Amino acid sequence: MKPLVECVPNVSEGRDPQVLDLLAAVVTQVPGVHLLDLHRDEDHHRAVLTCAGEPEAVAQAAFTLVQAAMERIDVSRHMGQHPRIGAVDVVPFVPLRDVTMAQCVELARAVGARIGTELEIPVFLYEEAAVVPQRKHLEHIRKGGLEALGRRMHTDALWRPDFGPPKLHPTAGAVVVGARDILIAFNVVLDTDNVAIAQAIAKQIRTSGGGLPALKALGIQLPSRGLVQVSMNLTNYRKTPLHVAFEAVKHQADQWGVGIVESELVGLVPQDAILHVAAHYLKLPHLASRQILETRLCEE
Amino acid sequence: MKPLVECVPNVSEGRDPQVLDLLAAVVTQVPGVHLLDLHRDEDHHRAVLTCAGEPEAVAQAAFTLVQAAMERIDVSRHMGQHPRIGAVDVVPFVPLRDVTMAQCVELARAVGARIGTELEIPVFLYEEAAVVPQRKHLEHIRKGGLEALGRRMHTDALWRPDFGPPKLHPTAGAVVVGARDILIAFNVVLDTDNVAIAQAIAKQIRTSGGGLPALKALGIQLPSRGLVQVSMNLTNYRKTPLHVAFEAVKHQADQWGVGIVESELVGLVPQDAILHVAAHYLKLPHLASRQILETRLCEE
Repeated sequence: MKPLVECVPNVSEGRDPQVLDLLAAVVTQVPGVHLLDLHRDEDHHRAVLTCAGEPEAVAQAAFTLVQAAMERIDVSRHMGQHPRIGAVDVVPFVPLRDVTMAQCVELARAVGARIGTELEIPVFLYEEAAVVPQRKHLEHIRKGGLEALGRRMHTDALWRPDFGPPKLHPTAGAVVVGARDILIAFNVVLDTDNVAIAQAIAKQIRTSGGGLPALKALGIQLPSRGLVQVSMNLTNYRKTPLHVAFEAVKHQADQWGVGIVESELVGLVPQDAILHVAAHYLKLPHLASRQILETRLCEE
Repeated sequence: MKPLVECVPNVSEGRDPQVLDLLAAVVTQVPGVHLLDLHRDEDHHRAVLTCAGEPEAVAQAAFTLVQAAMERIDVSRHMGQHPRIGAVDVVPFVPLRDVTMAQCVELARAVGARIGTELEIPVFLYEEAAVVPQRKHLEHIRKGGLEALGRRMHTDALWRPDFGPPKLHPTAGAVVVGARDILIAFNVVLDTDNVAIAQAIAKQIRTSGGGLPALKALGIQLPSRGLVQVSMNLTNYRKTPLHVAFEAVKHQADQWGVGIVESELVGLVPQDAILHVAAHYLKLPHLASRQILETRLCEE
């Protein structure tokens, strides 16, 4: 089987369908790259593209996406609820099949170098591709937002980017590029417009607050709905499965006397993560992908 | 794409691995037939083979399976907890892809005719392939067990089989052959050895007792575990999803003060049925197979 890499660029545009259609077209124009999903959020003012294909093809698609986005998106004028530091905010490469993490790291660094040199946007390498330990995690790079990153780059030698010029691009900002394992983006919408409650819950349950392992969480306002959400990244769904994250939010929300409206998965989710959920609630100890009809048919 | 039919023969042998290995080999020896699953149960003394392939190949596999089973299984000496009327008890054909139900009916009737004529085992057509309306449902054909069926065949012209001799085969009994939609076999194990409780719950929740739609249920003893189970067939998981059946059993068991030990899926389950479960418990209104990574990769 051909080696397969996933790439999940997050772009700072979630409202203009024309721009998103164009970005989608840029990705799918690269032969051998499949756009598996495009999830946009008006409140976040952000979109998540999920694409997959052979490593070199996916790397080329990621580069042309950053190039097209910098011409269409001005992050200095961006007003969304989701933290971001670039027109294309983050570009993770994920090993899917017959590819090692080391190869994804190499891919990320090669694409990062091209973005820095050819597009003159500063690039920070993160997660498995990180070179500077203080920049391993996205939340540390994004801390304080675009403006704070610009100041750090200006004043602190530690914040010289891995590639590209040592200052923010006037419209494209900066780009975080790296390699990581599969991640599940899972949001739970609360029945309140008080963002402080979502923020308090996020702080309580996330790893950095002493909560659940392998869980990042933020409280985010959803002005278009008059609601708030706990926006989560599950960085290892075997350590903290979807249902554990959901029940933790539900338990905390109960304490506040606030209900759950609904949940939302951003982008794609591994089948295994869904099987974990069903196995838990139905008390099915042995549920595995080999019991799923479509999985077996796909294998044959 | 090639047309694809599923066939799920249930055989009255769940204990002897040599016999089951042989039956599995008989199925996989037919070119183009894939054995997707073999589930055996010692208490039921029954095994369920799930195979798939092109219609003619699957039909041939079903016939040779009945032929091999009649040489190895003596249903007149069978002592299992699950109701049955034949060495091979029931052979359903299920349209999976680019095949109509009408084609599966034709297939079932052709295989039934061969079993009747060449193997001299009486064959009853059921579900979509049924010719006699009173024999549409398996539970009506099996009512009272092998002995009662033998008597009905002897005394009632309505119970002349669709194919084969008008009396039971001395060791192979009879075979029910037909066509139906996908069915989920789902068992919930209760924390009691009192089979009357499982039977009462089954009666309460099944369609025939005025319970949930598209649900068949039996209470079955599990002597090897000192427990009992509610053994269910969900004949339309969109009408009664897995979680609704599970919660119904749980609710009834609560009334009896009995806990749920675990559940079990027999054979394969459509991915969609598992997505329904996760969507319900996680409050995910839009969860669909297009959000499952493996599904998208399989499509590309």
